[in-house]
Amino acid sequence: MKETGLTQLIITDPVSIAYLAVHYEDPIERFWALYLRTDGNHKLVANRLFTLNDVSGVEILWYSDGEDGAALLNQYVDHESPLGIDKCMAARFLIRLLDLNAAPKYLNASDCVDDNRARKDAEEQEKMREASRINDAAMAEFKKLIHEGVTELEIAEQMEAIYKKLGAQGHSFEPLVGFGGNAANGHHGPDHTVLKKGDCVLFDVGCKKDGYCSDMTRTFFYGEVSPEHEKVYETVRRAQAAAEAMIRPGVKLCEIDHAARSVITEAGYGPYFTHRLGHFIGQEVHEKGDVSAANEAVVKPGMTFSIEPGIYLPGDVGVRIEDLVLVTEDGVEILNHYDKTLQIIPVTEK
Amino acid sequence: MKETGLTQLIITDPVSIAYLAVHYEDPIERFWALYLRTDGNHKLVANRLFTLNDVSGVEILWYSDGEDGAALLNQYVDHESPLGIDKCMAARFLIRLLDLNAAPKYLNASDCVDDNRARKDAEEQEKMREASRINDAAMAEFKKLIHEGVTELEIAEQMEAIYKKLGAQGHSFEPLVGFGGNAANGHHGPDHTVLKKGDCVLFDVGCKKDGYCSDMTRTFFYGEVSPEHEKVYETVRRAQAAAEAMIRPGVKLCEIDHAARSVITEAGYGPYFTHRLGHFIGQEVHEKGDVSAANEAVVKPGMTFSIEPGIYLPGDVGVRIEDLVLVTEDGVEILNHYDKTLQIIPVTEK
Repeated sequence: MKETGLTQLIITDPVSIAYLAVHYEDPIERFWALYLRTDGNHKLVANRLFTLNDVSGVEILWYSDGEDGAALLNQYVDHESPLGIDKCMAARFLIRLLDLNAAPKYLNASDCVDDNRARKDAEEQEKMREASRINDAAMAEFKKLIHEGVTELEIAEQMEAIYKKLGAQGHSFEPLVGFGGNAANGHHGPDHTVLKKGDCVLFDVGCKKDGYCSDMTRTFFYGEVSPEHEKVYETVRRAQAAAEAMIRPGVKLCEIDHAARSVITEAGYGPYFTHRLGHFIGQEVHEKGDVSAANEAVVKPGMTFSIEPGIYLPGDVGVRIEDLVLVTEDGVEILNHYDKTLQIIPVTEK
Repeated sequence: MKETGLTQLIITDPVSIAYLAVHYEDPIERFWALYLRTDGNHKLVANRLFTLNDVSGVEILWYSDGEDGAALLNQYVDHESPLGIDKCMAARFLIRLLDLNAAPKYLNASDCVDDNRARKDAEEQEKMREASRINDAAMAEFKKLIHEGVTELEIAEQMEAIYKKLGAQGHSFEPLVGFGGNAANGHHGPDHTVLKKGDCVLFDVGCKKDGYCSDMTRTFFYGEVSPEHEKVYETVRRAQAAAEAMIRPGVKLCEIDHAARSVITEAGYGPYFTHRLGHFIGQEVHEKGDVSAANEAVVKPGMTFSIEPGIYLPGDVGVRIEDLVLVTEDGVEILNHYDKTLQIIPVTEK
């Protein structure tokens, strides 16, 4: 906050509140806010329904259902100074603060917290490693589920039990399972599509362990692979390797995106790599920060993010290869170790 | 919108966009907005990653990762008129609109959509009935999971498979399973607590079917019930019955809350009923609208909400009984039929 010149900041992201004040609460639609001030006069606004036995060192402003938590907090806000707001605050609360003339100006000041969350300490790093270790082991199990006649949904529904057996709490996000052309649709959810020979099989999956997330994508082929699909696969693999090879402190995130994108563009598939290269990750699957052409920020030790180039030929094939990476003092540690060479699953009867 | 005098409105709640424009998209942190104007010049702002084959009749403003979707939309906004914003818009987008001077004033105008969503049509009503029918059947199965030595988590982990077997898509929210004093903590998640004789067993559970949600709570006792716990239970039951009995079009929601609260207060447990009586429900478990002392709005046909009084004695016992109700033309239809009489589960070895 001092770096940004802000003297006051309201955090409403429950994960950020937990990061700063220990206690995690899912407030659903209720107001749950940590008000931080550079003079140390912090407040926590909480509904009486919440049980905050684990919170200490901050004054709690309690309100009940039917009372106005935002108006309660407004009594303590410095109305003469700009007010930092985190990116997640719902409009129902922010518009209420506008109506109350809480401040002369409102700034998206999530970075004050997010830039700290982006750099994992040693304990967090070990949790990130462990979640990805489980994800590697799970991918080997998921591959075994690929067989004649199976549907995307049948595979997806078996995944959570496998994660739990391997010691994870469960999914970190709903798994993406895409066969053939479905894999080219970035937001396709697993459905009753039946696997057929020549299909690609894309698994974009992750689990949560000790509150930290993993996230990995691998793309297999079933029965056979056409020369064009093989070219697509190898292009994605080279793009992914090029990006991972250049990660070290001091490099710009946009340069990493560029490294992967250049490989794909030179192979003629530029228009079919439709998204940014990666996103930051930690306690949430998508945290503040991304690896994209627009992000000029510089890589720093302790950052964890995904490297996930893809090529999507509509209705035909989608290939994505994704690892999580951890930036070290002088380079990078790739958190996923599951094989990235082209794997063709033999056709067999179940 | 015409009733409120607004000429323009931005909707970002994905469920509301789906309600109005057919297509459901989970944009994660990306900008996804439906801009509605009373002159009919609507726009839909979408990231190129989304596949919108099912959208028609509205111009789509496409942007890519790295581009500024809010700034794109701002080119089409009427900068001279107040701008309605839905309650869910994240601050990262609303503050961006403030910076762009999109409008002279911003209003929380979710009600324009939410008041329509609150009143279910015949097709939606049938889906609400079906989701609660499954929930009734599931509760009977969940009761069978209560046995000597079981933990809350062991029961909770079996629930999703039961819902799916009964034809639901899955949970509508993470189930609450609380034994004894844990049931008095409204936000207690199932843990390794082992059931013991004399404990209450609270299940607050729901499933999703065809996109609509159920939500019901029942509280059992294991082995025996103390006279005080029985008094607590019967008080909650009478409070719940009093509230349900008075629901019909024209009654105020705060009056329904009052009916239940009076019963509990008269029995001496007023301070231990710590939350509002109920919430609206439909495609989401918690939709706009509640049954609380602060809500002067009037009940209308087609509304669906929960009636869920509770008494929570910290560290000792928590009893809540919850049904969903559907307001009819001249009264109410209770959507849950699972028994509400006090049930004591006999102690048996597994």
